[in-house]
Parts: sequence; C-alpha cells; structure tokens
Amino acid sequence: MKYGITETVKTIKSKIKVKDIIYDIVEKKTNAIKYFLEGQEFNQTIVFGAYLCGNYMAHALLKDSDEVILVDVYPHLKDMIVSEKITFMDSNKFNLALRNGKLNPDLIVDITGIGGISPEILSKFNPEVLIVENPKCTYDKDIFEIDNSMDRLNTGKKRGLLNTFRSSKVSKTSGTMTLTIDTVLDSCAEIKELDGVLYALPNLKYYEGILFHEKDAKKFIGEVNAPAITVSCLDEYIIPEIDRILSKNMEKINSFVVKAK
Amino acid sequence: MKYGITETVKTIKSKIKVKDIIYDIVEKKTNAIKYFLEGQEFNQTIVFGAYLCGNYMAHALLKDSDEVILVDVYPHLKDMIVSEKITFMDSNKFNLALRNGKLNPDLIVDITGIGGISPEILSKFNPEVLIVENPKCTYDKDIFEIDNSMDRLNTGKKRGLLNTFRSSKVSKTSGTMTLTIDTVLDSCAEIKELDGVLYALPNLKYYEGILFHEKDAKKFIGEVNAPAITVSCLDEYIIPEIDRILSKNMEKINSFVVKAK
Amino acid sequence: MKYGITETVKTIKSKIKVKDIIYDIVEKKTNAIKYFLEGQEFNQTIVFGAYLCGNYMAHALLKDSDEVILVDVYPHLKDMIVSEKITFMDSNKFNLALRNGKLNPDLIVDITGIGGISPEILSKFNPEVLIVENPKCTYDKDIFEIDNSMDRLNTGKKRGLLNTFRSSKVSKTSGTMTLTIDTVLDSCAEIKELDGVLYALPNLKYYEGILFHEKDAKKFIGEVNAPAITVSCLDEYIIPEIDRILSKNMEKINSFVVKAK
Amino acid sequence: MKYGITETVKTIKSKIKVKDIIYDIVEKKTNAIKYFLEGQEFNQTIVFGAYLCGNYMAHALLKDSDEVILVDVYPHLKDMIVSEKITFMDSNKFNLALRNGKLNPDLIVDITGIGGISPEILSKFNPEVLIVENPKCTYDKDIFEIDNSMDRLNTGKKRGLLNTFRSSKVSKTSGTMTLTIDTVLDSCAEIKELDGVLYALPNLKYYEGILFHEKDAKKFIGEVNAPAITVSCLDEYIIPEIDRILSKNMEKINSFVVKAK
Ligand SMILES: Nc1ncnc2c1ncn2[C@@H]1O[C@H](CSCC[C@H](N)C(=O)O)[C@@H](O)[C@H]1O
Ligand SMILES: Nc1ncnc2c1ncn2[C@@H]1O[C@H](CSCC[C@H](N)C(=O)O)[C@@H](O)[C@H]1O
Ligand SMILES: Nc1ncnc2c1ncn2[C@@H]1O[C@H](CSCC[C@H](N)C(=O)O)[C@@H](O)[C@H]1O
Ligand SMILES: Nc1ncnc2c1ncn2[C@@H]1O[C@H](CSCC[C@H](N)C(=O)O)[C@@H](O)[C@H]1O
Repeated sequence: MKYGITETVKTIKSKIKVKDIIYDIVEKKTNAIKYFLEGQEFNQTIVFGAYLCGNYMAHALLKDSDEVILVDVYPHLKDMIVSEKITFMDSNKFNLALRNGKLNPDLIVDITGIGGISPEILSKFNPEVLIVENPKCTYDKDIFEIDNSMDRLNTGKKRGLLNTFRSSKVSKTSGTMTLTIDTVLDSCAEIKELDGVLYALPNLKYYEGILFHEKDAKKFIGEVNAPAITVSCLDEYIIPEIDRILSKNMEKINSFVVKAK
Repeated sequence: MKYGITETVKTIKSKIKVKDIIYDIVEKKTNAIKYFLEGQEFNQTIVFGAYLCGNYMAHALLKDSDEVILVDVYPHLKDMIVSEKITFMDSNKFNLALRNGKLNPDLIVDITGIGGISPEILSKFNPEVLIVENPKCTYDKDIFEIDNSMDRLNTGKKRGLLNTFRSSKVSKTSGTMTLTIDTVLDSCAEIKELDGVLYALPNLKYYEGILFHEKDAKKFIGEVNAPAITVSCLDEYIIPEIDRILSKNMEKINSFVVKAK
Repeated sequence: MKYGITETVKTIKSKIKVKDIIYDIVEKKTNAIKYFLEGQEFNQTIVFGAYLCGNYMAHALLKDSDEVILVDVYPHLKDMIVSEKITFMDSNKFNLALRNGKLNPDLIVDITGIGGISPEILSKFNPEVLIVENPKCTYDKDIFEIDNSMDRLNTGKKRGLLNTFRSSKVSKTSGTMTLTIDTVLDSCAEIKELDGVLYALPNLKYYEGILFHEKDAKKFIGEVNAPAITVSCLDEYIIPEIDRILSKNMEKINSFVVKAK
Repeated sequence: MKYGITETVKTIKSKIKVKDIIYDIVEKKTNAIKYFLEGQEFNQTIVFGAYLCGNYMAHALLKDSDEVILVDVYPHLKDMIVSEKITFMDSNKFNLALRNGKLNPDLIVDITGIGGISPEILSKFNPEVLIVENPKCTYDKDIFEIDNSMDRLNTGKKRGLLNTFRSSKVSKTSGTMTLTIDTVLDSCAEIKELDGVLYALPNLKYYEGILFHEKDAKKFIGEVNAPAITVSCLDEYIIPEIDRILSKNMEKINSFVVKAK
C-alpha cells in the first residue's frame, strides 16, 4: 500500500498480476485438452500457434508425446520456449519438414484462431486426435462469419473443439488475451463500487504490439508481470477485496473440449 | 490502423488521446469558474492545488487578475507552469508570504479536494470571491463523510462550490483523473459491443504515481500523450465509431459553480 | 417454489415484496428526518405531499408534534391515512385554513419534489424547522435544472435538505418509487448472472398510474404486495441468493438531512 | 403521452408492445428455419412444442408441407392454434398416432428446449430433415450441462441446430421469452440514461405462469398486448428515443440454423 497525492488517499495494487490471469486461462485450456486426451499417448504432436496458450500447451504435452513440435509463422516466438525437448518450426522449417515427409502427427492441436491455419493444411494430416480451438465466444455477426474452426475439424479419428467461455459475461473471443482484458475490466467496474474507492485503474497495455510488432518477448514477459489493477481509495479494508473480486471473475472462465463428429 | 497478429485482425488506436480528455475536463471546470466570475476583475488571485486542473485555471485567470499565485505542497509541480506571470509557491514560500502579509487575495480558488487545504487556512483570508471544488460525485458513504468542501466555504463575499458530474453515470469523485479514467472505461465497454470488435483496451497508467511518486512531470506529459483506447477488430468501418463513442462519453461531463450562502 | 413449463425448470419468487422495498426507503427517509430533529418537539407540523413517503412520515411525527397536518393536492390520498390524529387537507382545506390563520407550523416537511410546492407558499411560514426533500440524485442536466429545492429552503430557523442516494449506483431521482424500481432492476441484472438462472423477471407495474390516474389506493396497496422478482432457474440453491442480492441493493440506499444555512 | 403526478412530469409508454418483441423473435426463428429448408417440400411435418415459437412455425410450415402436426404435452395450448389445417396432438393423441404408424414425418422441428422431448423419441423417426433448437446462449455451467440438444440431433438425412443469440449481450437461454425479457430490461437501462428521464419501467409479467399454471391463453394474449416500457420523464423529446432504443436492442437478436453432421 502506498499513499496517493495526500495521506488521506491510499493507492493499492492488486496482488494478482496480469500474468497470473493469463496463466490461469492457459492452464484451464491445457487441462481441458488433457482431459479430452484421457491419458492417450502419442508419437508426434504438432501444436499450431505459440501465442498465447500454445507454448504452455506444447510444454505440457511433453508428458504425453515422444515428440512435440510447435509451429508458428512468427520465428521470434521461438524465444518463448523453455524446454529444449520442444522443436520450434517457423513457416519455412514447417514446409520443409512437410515436403520431406517428416511430419506424421498423431496429435494435432490448433490454437491459431481467427485468420490462423487453413483447413487445407490440416487436411493433409491424418492424426489420431485433432483439437481445434474455437475462437468464438459471445455472439457477434462478423466474428461468427469469419470463424472457420468447424471447417478445420476435417481430419482425425477423434476430433474436438476447444471452447473457452466466461459464465454469464460478454467476451467477443475465447482468446487468452481477450479473456484477460475482459476479466480485468469487469473486476475494475465491480471494485469501483466499493465504499471509499475513488477509482479502479486497469494496468493493461497493448501487449500484442510488444510481442508481434516490437518483436520483444522479454519486454512482453516483463510488462505482464505487473499488478492487474491499481485502486485509489480511502481505506485499507478493501485490500483483500480487490483480489477477491479479481479471483471471482477469473473463476468465471471455463474451458472444455466438445467432441465433434 | 495497423494489423494485429494476422492480417485478418486490425488494431486501431483512437485519435482522441488521454490528454484530450483531461484537457476537455480542465477546460470545462475553468469555463464554469469564469462563468461564475461574470467578468469580475481581481488584484490578487490564489489558486490552491496545481494538479490536475489548477495549473490550467491559474493560466486562464491571468486575464482576470493582475497577480496569480499557484500554491501546492509539492514543489516540483512548479515544472507544470508555462507562463512566467504565474507565481508558484510551495508550502514554505506560501507560509512566508502569509506571515509577511503579502497575501491578500480577492479571489481564491481551491481545487485541492479530498485531504487538501484546511478550512482554517482559508478562513484567514477575506476574498471578494471564494470558489471551492466539490470532490464528491456519485454517493459513497466514506467519500461523503471525509469531504469538507462546505466547511472550506467559510469566507468571502461571494462563495461558490464547483461541481463536476457525469450525466447518468457513476464516478466516485469529480477529480479530473477520476473522470478521465471512468470516461475511457465506459467508452471501452461500449466499443466492445460493436460488431467485429474482439476487444477494446484502455491505455491507462497510474499517472498520479509518475507525477507524485516519481516526481517526473515530463514523463507524465509524455504518458498522457497516448491514444486513449486501442481496439482489436475485424473491420475498419468502426474507426470513426471509436472516437464518436469517446466524444459522446466526454460530453456527459458537466461542470458548474453553485452559489453558496 | 414452483415448477416452470417442465419439471426441469423451477420458478422462484423473492420473499421480499415490492412494498418491503418501499417501506425500507420510507423508513430510512423518516429516520433521517428524526435524526435531524434531535428529539425536538413541536406544536404544529405540516407535511406537504402524502405520496409516497409523506404519509408514513406524518404518522411517525405524531410522536414529536401535538398536531400533524398532511397536505396534498389529490384529495383521494386521504385514504392512505391510518391514524385519526392526522389532519388531511386538500388544496381547498389548506387555502381556507391558511386564510383563517389556522396555520402556524413550527415544523414543515416538504416531500413534494419535482413540480411540487412553490417556494412562495413556503415563504409564507416561519417555522422553527423546515426540511425540504432534494429530488435530485445522479446528475442529469434537465432534472438539475428544473429542481428548485434550494429555493424552497427560504424560511425557518433551522433548515435541512433531505437527500437520499444509492451508493455507487445511478438513480435519476431520490423518489421512493424511482429508488424502488432501480433497486429491483439492478438486483435482476445481478441475479441473472447466477449459475443456472434462465431469467430474472421484475414484477413491477406503473403503480403511480394506479394511484393517481385510476385513483385506486386499495388496488395500489394490493399491487405492491407482490414478490419483487420472479426467477426461472434450474436449481433451488439460489433461493436464498435472490433475497440476499435484493437486500444488498436495498442497503445501498442512504438517506440523511444536510443542514443548510 | 400522459402526465405523471404533476404536470411537470410526463409518462410515456413505448409504442412497441411486448407482443411485438415476441413476434419479431418468432419471425426470425421461423425465417432461419425456412432458409435452412431451401424451399424443400414435405409430406408430413411434426413440430414438437407449441410455446412460444412452435405455434407460429407450424403455421408458417403449412406452405411447405402437406400435413403439419403440432405436438405439446399441455393440451390447452391447442387454443393458440389459428388455422384448422394444423393437427394438434397432446401426449395421448401423439402416442396413439405413433403406435398406429400414422407418424412418418419427413420434417421434424423440435423447439421444446430444456427438459423437453427426449433423444429416444426423436430417434424413432427417420426424417429428411431434423431441426432441433439449441436452448443455450451465453455460457452457464448448469445450463450447458443439462442441455442435450446435440443428443437429440441423432436422426435425419439433413440435421440442423437452430441457434438464436443476442449480439454482444448476455442472455442465459435462446428462449423467446428469455430474449424478450432481456431485450426489454437492457432497453430500460439505456433509456434511463437519457437526459430528463426519471425512471424507465419494464411492463413485464410472469407470462409463463398465466399460460401454463392458470392455463389461460386468452389472458396471456391480452397481457402481452401492452407497451413494453413506461417512462417517467420531463420532456417529450424522448418519445421517439424509447422505441428507437427498443428497436436497436431487438435488432441484436439473430437466429440461424447450423448444419450438423
Ligand atoms: N497459419 C499459421 N500457422 C502457424 N501459426 C499461426 C498461423 N497463423 C497464425 N499463427 C499464430 O497463431 C497465433 C494466433 S493468436 C492465438 C491465440 C490463442 N487462441 C489464445 O487464446 O491464446 C499467433 O502466435 C500466430 O502467429
Ligand atoms: N494543503 C494544500 N495546499 C496546497 N496544495 C495542496 C494541499 N493539499 C493538497 N494539495 C495539492 O492539491 C492537489 C490535489 S489533487 C486535486 C485534483 C483536482 N481536484 C482535479 O480534479 O484536477 C495536488 O496537486 C496536491 O499536491
Ligand atoms: N403543491 C403541492 N402541495 C401539496 N402536495 C403536492 C403539491 N404538489 C405535489 N404534491 C403532492 O406531492 C407528491 C409528489 S410525489 C413525491 C414523492 C416523494 N418525494 C417520495 O420520494 O416518496 C404527490 O402526492 C403530489 O400529489
Ligand atoms: N416432451 C415434449 N413433447 C412435446 N412438447 C413438449 C415436451 N416437453 C415440453 N414441451 C413443450 O415445449 C415447450 C417448451 S418451452 C419452449 C420455448 C421455445 N424454445 C421458444 O423459444 O419459444 C412448451 O410448450 C412445452 O409444453
């Protein structure tokens, strides 16, 4: 806790950081996938899309798969990888490996979402399991129109659609960043209403830009390591309320895979 | 307009910057004061409180007063002053001038708000006009309890209470920063609902901390010179909608002085 | 609890009725007035305005005043009075009593609000205490413009402005009916978000019309004696939640008298 | 327009009635089905569920089908039928016809929703086209769990899931009544914020109870023939705004059939 402009007003930062919310979502999505896989083991797994949950998913799947390949069109996202056991492939490496017949995944996970991988590329494979992330959340005419996740579910013996929603709340996509932003903003609206709160400020940045335009993974990791909300208030009693409200909103995020035919 | 992660998604920043919203509010508060003064002219004006609107008000009152003194407990806020004609006084300079009988303001404007200047200090003066800013906005038990703006209106032939509210919206104080944050957040909530919008991100920082803790006025001015909102969306048609919605919310801010007995 | 269309869906009505919310507000307004009166006793009290809180206030003031007169422009509101000790006066009776010098109240309470009693009529009196209800709540340009409660506070040794607000919520007036409607609607929005709730339906009617157009006080009393909210849901667990949320919103209503000069 | 308690306040009722909103939704759902049918013609159509959209759908399908049968577990819903050409069957009649081999529908439409018809009964048939209404809308753990619309899509050459959503808004189910209630309540929240509005009152009743508990179809039809919203305000300028806002919210409702495998 710090003082604001005068000692009458306090400034309190949430204990929960932006990265905690991201991590909670990414963990939920990964658990949803694990649950769908029912302990099945694989020889070769390809995860399409490193950002934002793909990287964590790839690491988690090392337990279930001999080989894990993480594919992304942005080469610099290789910097996000922690384990050496993961093979990163940018577009060139991927196309080369594809042409050389090195790719015969029995598990494919596509989290590229809107504007991501095409159904045609996925149809080249014949996995045991194919999981495609549904980028749709609350209905939006344009977003529902441009989504083609069901078309991507065109191969594989077992097919699943990964859904992530917020209970009784509006989010325009199931993207990890979208859900993080909405969780923080909805929490701010609630915190603002507590007695003695002057304002609730979301500490959010255009993180996408840092990672994809500035291509600075290290800066991205540093920026999300900040308290999600800063509150200006009269009383310290609300200190636990801030994280309680944030946690309550984080709990509204549910992820599950629906089996598709 | 820029592209997001893929060319399917666009990233659009509002033309309206955080500083534009701040300026709009500060201008409204100053106009409210000018309207109340009805063209009256003064010899010596004291404005208590440089941040956030006090500084601009002091500059605007140069037209109505031979001498304008801006008083603030934070000496470094002197850096915010543009015109040489304004005399800045920190606590020491102020107390010295007070003891030496140099202060006999016929106009006093107090915008120090919650935890600001005490009624006792104001009662030492006998101005023609005294205007005190009401920091209260939407009802809040604790904020209403700690406010003593009516007690500060204890001197002066003509007394006015400066109110600033947002039509049909909740703001916990009339502070320029509070109103700015709430205007941006309410606009984000509205923009998010437009067709094709993935998320609406407020580009807000804990500006108070930059100015009062880091004591960096230059950095503060740089930070507020950023687009208020960044929107991730599918279509460029919403480009004018972003600023239209921001403007509509800015227009909800009304400032006026109520004559007190 | 009842079943909905099938046994899978339940229909639950709140225990809290519309009249309970009205009563809670009316009680708070009356307590605020009592607190301001500090146990002072009076010979003759005039309460202007029977609907919606005036009637209850008149009854409560029987303990503090030898004579209590309730004045209203609608003669049929006499039907709302329970105690014989209260003298009801419509416009004719009031003007007659005024002309005959029968009226010399030492306590006046005006709750007529927007478009109510004029400052001129109040200025005819010289009470020990005058309390005028402030109909304003959340800022609204038109409502703030038409309000003249401060002009009505033009007489009396001790003058007070009765304010009623909802903490951190928007209400356009402090009217008992307005606050009741807003409390129910805000509660519905919150209940709707509970797990398993299909919809939350407010059981509200245009009660004003029943009382002032149909002039049917009995029907009015019958209509407000209905559960405030009907909820369609899957699970009985939420039964206590409905009244808890309603109570929580009722607690946001605060009433207090501010001493005016 | 009428006056409120005094001539200063006006009472305005929306031109749009509750039944207009219901009709708009029912029309959209029916158009979605027609679009999916692509002008195909049928010998025998069975619509399961008369309330709230089933009845209108059955009438609309008379153009596409030689025979239209409307089945419902509540016999009294027969009263809702206008055209003699529709055959109404309650549970007994349906089971009898089923046993006697009279039922061989080539088009089946199931709008019974949550707790409605079982997958087993639908599996007895072998239609050209089967359309099942998805009662789910915004994510809710319990509602998503109890829904079995995908299990009902277990027969038919061409299978479609009828979805109805509100753009960027929260509705807990796609039920016609739920969407109607939410549309009215969201409109009230918006109208309340207009300048000069004192309150916006939704004129909603527990219509389900009237139709299913009181079993009074005539009363139901009478009750929904009322203005959706009553507004207390200072100025007539907002008269067109009320219906404009209602229409805007009605336009957020989108219905479409998704082809299922
Ligand atoms: N065709 C393609 N092949 C591989 N990666 C792709 C791709 N198109 C987009 N991507 C990558 O997929 C990611 C899209 S953003 C995906 C976000 C994810 N759904 C979440 O919720 O966290 C980016 O890393 C992008 O570079
Ligand atoms: N006793 C005092 N004398 C002078 N300045 C004071 C003071 N107490 C606080 N201040 C100053 O008053 C300001 C308080 S913040 C005021 C914000 C202003 N109401 C707005 O809406 O823009 C700060 O600059 C603070 O340093
Ligand atoms: N000039 C006048 N004299 C007496 N009663 C008046 C009046 N003008 C209006 N009224 C009455 O005052 C009431 C206005 S409605 C007041 C509602 C009250 N503020 C509440 O919150 O409950 C009505 O009963 C109306 O008939
Ligand atoms: N097993 C069954 N067979 C036939 N009708 C049934 C049924 N179970 C429920 N119903 C009927 O189906 C309706 C359920 S309410 C359905 C509402 C509809 N989805 C809408 O949005 O308008 C009721 O009329 C109910 O009586």
